[in-house]
Amino acid sequence: MSNQKPKAAVIMGSDSDLPIVRKTIEILKKFDVEYEVNVLSAHRTPDMAMEYARSAEQKGFEVIIAAAGKAAHLPGVIAALTILPVIGIPIKSSTMDGLDSLLSIVQMPSGIPVATVAIDGAENAGLLAVQILSLKHQVLKEKLIMHKADMERAVIEKNNKIKEEVF
Amino acid sequence: MSNQKPKAAVIMGSDSDLPIVRKTIEILKKFDVEYEVNVLSAHRTPDMAMEYARSAEQKGFEVIIAAAGKAAHLPGVIAALTILPVIGIPIKSSTMDGLDSLLSIVQMPSGIPVATVAIDGAENAGLLAVQILSLKHQVLKEKLIMHKADMERAVIEKNNKIKEEVF
Amino acid sequence: MSNQKPKAAVIMGSDSDLPIVRKTIEILKKFDVEYEVNVLSAHRTPDMAMEYARSAEQKGFEVIIAAAGKAAHLPGVIAALTILPVIGIPIKSSTMDGLDSLLSIVQMPSGIPVATVAIDGAENAGLLAVQILSLKHQVLKEKLIMHKADMERAVIEKNNKIKEEVF
Amino acid sequence: MSNQKPKAAVIMGSDSDLPIVRKTIEILKKFDVEYEVNVLSAHRTPDMAMEYARSAEQKGFEVIIAAAGKAAHLPGVIAALTILPVIGIPIKSSTMDGLDSLLSIVQMPSGIPVATVAIDGAENAGLLAVQILSLKHQVLKEKLIMHKADMERAVIEKNNKIKEEVF
Amino acid sequence: MSNQKPKAAVIMGSDSDLPIVRKTIEILKKFDVEYEVNVLSAHRTPDMAMEYARSAEQKGFEVIIAAAGKAAHLPGVIAALTILPVIGIPIKSSTMDGLDSLLSIVQMPSGIPVATVAIDGAENAGLLAVQILSLKHQVLKEKLIMHKADMERAVIEKNNKIKEEVF
Amino acid sequence: MSNQKPKAAVIMGSDSDLPIVRKTIEILKKFDVEYEVNVLSAHRTPDMAMEYARSAEQKGFEVIIAAAGKAAHLPGVIAALTILPVIGIPIKSSTMDGLDSLLSIVQMPSGIPVATVAIDGAENAGLLAVQILSLKHQVLKEKLIMHKADMERAVIEKNNKIKEEVF
Amino acid sequence: MSNQKPKAAVIMGSDSDLPIVRKTIEILKKFDVEYEVNVLSAHRTPDMAMEYARSAEQKGFEVIIAAAGKAAHLPGVIAALTILPVIGIPIKSSTMDGLDSLLSIVQMPSGIPVATVAIDGAENAGLLAVQILSLKHQVLKEKLIMHKADMERAVIEKNNKIKEEVF
Amino acid sequence: MSNQKPKAAVIMGSDSDLPIVRKTIEILKKFDVEYEVNVLSAHRTPDMAMEYARSAEQKGFEVIIAAAGKAAHLPGVIAALTILPVIGIPIKSSTMDGLDSLLSIVQMPSGIPVATVAIDGAENAGLLAVQILSLKHQVLKEKLIMHKADMERAVIEKNNKIKEEVF
Repeated sequence: MSNQKPKAAVIMGSDSDLPIVRKTIEILKKFDVEYEVNVLSAHRTPDMAMEYARSAEQKGFEVIIAAAGKAAHLPGVIAALTILPVIGIPIKSSTMDGLDSLLSIVQMPSGIPVATVAIDGAENAGLLAVQILSLKHQVLKEKLIMHKADMERAVIEKNNKIKEEVF
Repeated sequence: MSNQKPKAAVIMGSDSDLPIVRKTIEILKKFDVEYEVNVLSAHRTPDMAMEYARSAEQKGFEVIIAAAGKAAHLPGVIAALTILPVIGIPIKSSTMDGLDSLLSIVQMPSGIPVATVAIDGAENAGLLAVQILSLKHQVLKEKLIMHKADMERAVIEKNNKIKEEVF
Repeated sequence: MSNQKPKAAVIMGSDSDLPIVRKTIEILKKFDVEYEVNVLSAHRTPDMAMEYARSAEQKGFEVIIAAAGKAAHLPGVIAALTILPVIGIPIKSSTMDGLDSLLSIVQMPSGIPVATVAIDGAENAGLLAVQILSLKHQVLKEKLIMHKADMERAVIEKNNKIKEEVF
Repeated sequence: MSNQKPKAAVIMGSDSDLPIVRKTIEILKKFDVEYEVNVLSAHRTPDMAMEYARSAEQKGFEVIIAAAGKAAHLPGVIAALTILPVIGIPIKSSTMDGLDSLLSIVQMPSGIPVATVAIDGAENAGLLAVQILSLKHQVLKEKLIMHKADMERAVIEKNNKIKEEVF
Repeated sequence: MSNQKPKAAVIMGSDSDLPIVRKTIEILKKFDVEYEVNVLSAHRTPDMAMEYARSAEQKGFEVIIAAAGKAAHLPGVIAALTILPVIGIPIKSSTMDGLDSLLSIVQMPSGIPVATVAIDGAENAGLLAVQILSLKHQVLKEKLIMHKADMERAVIEKNNKIKEEVF
Repeated sequence: MSNQKPKAAVIMGSDSDLPIVRKTIEILKKFDVEYEVNVLSAHRTPDMAMEYARSAEQKGFEVIIAAAGKAAHLPGVIAALTILPVIGIPIKSSTMDGLDSLLSIVQMPSGIPVATVAIDGAENAGLLAVQILSLKHQVLKEKLIMHKADMERAVIEKNNKIKEEVF
Repeated sequence: MSNQKPKAAVIMGSDSDLPIVRKTIEILKKFDVEYEVNVLSAHRTPDMAMEYARSAEQKGFEVIIAAAGKAAHLPGVIAALTILPVIGIPIKSSTMDGLDSLLSIVQMPSGIPVATVAIDGAENAGLLAVQILSLKHQVLKEKLIMHKADMERAVIEKNNKIKEEVF
Repeated sequence: MSNQKPKAAVIMGSDSDLPIVRKTIEILKKFDVEYEVNVLSAHRTPDMAMEYARSAEQKGFEVIIAAAGKAAHLPGVIAALTILPVIGIPIKSSTMDGLDSLLSIVQMPSGIPVATVAIDGAENAGLLAVQILSLKHQVLKEKLIMHKADMERAVIEKNNKIKEEVF
């Protein structure tokens, strides 16, 4: 349906989020989605963050993935300035066990949704992006079916291993 | 890009969720998205729920919105059986202020994402669905831009009213 | 020390916050602080909110009070774009008993403080603003001392009343 | 009353749950309950999990013990497809201190109970299974009485040791 | 397999728990389980509660259902003195939204399990009792299958109604 | 006023609580309060625990300190069977950060109070016992005054040290 | 042992706490404990509160009961300035369901204990005071035994009533 | 506008808070704010703490920063006795992940505000103090603008580094 490669923007509020966000990037690579990674802070680089949000669609991005911790405003602030779907990853920091990040991202007021995944759920953020992109890029649908089958196989193998081990 | 109308499935775990879910339906109507509404329980009608999930893509649905309360398994169980993006709405019930529904939906394990919105965030579930559908259905993009402008105007009007009232 | 009247900006994310925020306004009136009230949403009117934050100091405002609920980004987004002290009021909404608003406002990352008061603590937001303004406007110091004395007297009167009633 | 050996099914959502679930298995062994262990995911192997639930009774299982973490749907999904009693073990994962797993398992809607034990309470899951099985298998009753007596003795011994040590 | 009627003990820590516990009793009636209801407090009538627990098995009870609120010790105290399976119902009281009752019941230490259901989950407590009793009383198995079918039918009817109403 | 030495009973639900409870014992030693230490479980040795509670007053104990973790029933069960003041120490275990222990101890229903101290607050449990005992044993009052003075001096010394270090 | 009447001080942070605190007063009346009631705020009348704490022992008070809500500092501040046992009642206010009051009172640092009862647990605060006073005033011991017997009888009566009603 | 150097008081409830509070001191040094550091406990040195609060303004302090953990009363107690703005830093201790400290500081009753920053948010406490002081000390305004620019530059550099690394 589309000749262009699917294209996602990955942003994070701090470079300390990278160890978690790397799992998002690995999924995008695996599914051959074009991506751009940026450290952009809603609080320390507000102008850059907002400019990025405003121009994302025109630059060809089709979905934005934003990770942030504590009072995690980045995904919501980005969502305010674009009509692209925005996926939010709440990052667990040193206090409150991630609850602050989760509530700051998921409890968005009416009008500005953020598609929130689990605390530190970076792999799922990547997969959700691929599912969304697959509406337009049919090739991703087959890959998603294969990915599901791979996951199933992996569980079956682990099941077999455990059965040998337990008895 | 597409001649078909965009098409969304809306399901809820109990008919008592309808007063909240109605806001999702209103958004879909406003954006002229075709939709089908079902009460399907992951626990009381598991076979129907699973069959629905498995066949959703073939029936032409492009996104699934699932609302559920308490130990809210419906969105995750649906997501396990489809490659379509699944949006989860945690419904607040009589105890725990919605925290049980939220955690049961958002904390999905790696491999099976659910795009979670706020507790009782049915309007945003509809808008997120429209944003996702707009990847394929360009006409929705313009409507989203207009919706954003309408929201902005509404706030400005309220601002003017408050200024008159406060002073 | 200063001939100008002290001047505060009061903003709220939604007009539904007004019944709470009114208590802030009453304090500002009582202390004869000049103020301006606006409904400005970090999400629905992001450009206006940011423009407001950027120009606040030049317009003569000396402190900003921002109230918001749920994923309450307004105070933090404002604080990102000004060097004025920003006071945040977490507004309790229909779910999570205000915990979402509180954490979204108080858990700000390093570099961008928000002076957070109690959930629905609008009166204290006003008093904190007056305390801050009193650094420059000496006249407020005397009024603060009188306000403290009034509060003390009110408790003493209540104590006397209760003693009559209880025995 | 019954000539058959009592028989329990033990399933877990991920092989990473085994270190906890092993305590369940040790109890079943100690009480000479026949058991089968499987890794079955409500999300990654939904068909296998559901088929397992549907056929469990016919295969002679009398009780099912299901362990899962985060948005822990496995026990509830199994319970939806069997009339056997299902015992749920909430597994603590890396965020939220087990609260997400607990609420996802215990807060089941009316109609589909899951007998929930403590977070990581695998030993108690085993004992609860034995108590349930003892309704039909009288021999287990005597063993339960002995187990209770052993626990009592162990506490008494520890008490004696502490008394020597403390004074 | 058994000629006796199945028999359950229902106890609650306070008569104020009855409006919730009534749903347990209705289930027991519906499944023709013999039952006895008592108000017994772990704190105000500790001797009676303990004597009741100790003699429950000899009196022919096969399962005990115990409801309690706040620091809800009743189910655990009963479980300490019997080898019968004990089902705990956390009752929501005026503070903490039921979280205190839930944690006081479900977080039992190793050795003494309590089969915990949802906060105010009295209907499920009854159904879980029936599932447990069905191990010995085969007749209950058929009734459970019919109950599941009834629940399914009820959801299907609600689904049909909603479809008429929504469109 | 009294010739007897003041006398306290210290009990804990598990020997694993001793590292925390040791701080209680140190305080009792320091204030020359006679004490007896026991491991007694409300769940594993219910008869011993209850017998201990019933006979505590006659054995000359004047206050009981009870430590327990998770669904911490020990202090409440003891309080149900004595008219002595019972002090409860919530012990933090491996999940829920001590919240389960705290709520299980502090949220006692009307009629049976437990004087609850902080999570792992064993030192304060000892001091509270001494304060209570000082009603009858005047000699403790002087020691409490000296203890308060010692604490004050310790803070002042730390203050002096920090001042040297910081500048 | 003592000819004086037992004597307790009852203080509350705000006159709005009286409807709860009244239950404390009723218990003190019932047990014929002399008492004085005051509204004293740690924040609005700090000097009076502190003076009250400092002089309480000399005025013949033997125990202090302090009720407060939100960031409830009153019991701790009082405890800092007296060696009398201080009982704290966390009052539930309009947000956070009493959790803020509970944690502000119970989580006292080492050295300054506050004997904390349940949220809104005013009746138990009174009973705990009586238990503490009974160390010195033997007459209270008999009354406590009678009170326990009354409670037991009340539960038995309720049990009889429910049995008539349920069947 | 002012010839005096800006002057802040930094106090903490325990010397164990220093590793966190050091970040406040570094900010004050960086902005050339005069400061005095003290360990003062609301509970162990109440008289000193109160005397300090009462005389702070006369000694030339313009803002007070107070750090405390657990039932963190220090900032509120100080705020009760001064009209200076008081900034509160909730310190995370060994239980409850800082939630107890946060609620004890932020949930102040009407009349006595404490400007609360994030749990362990000592750097922001310093910056907030500087923003407040800048009302009177114009020189700080320029430094704040430069600080904001530095933060922005730091993020941009990190962004550049990550881009090199990720691709």
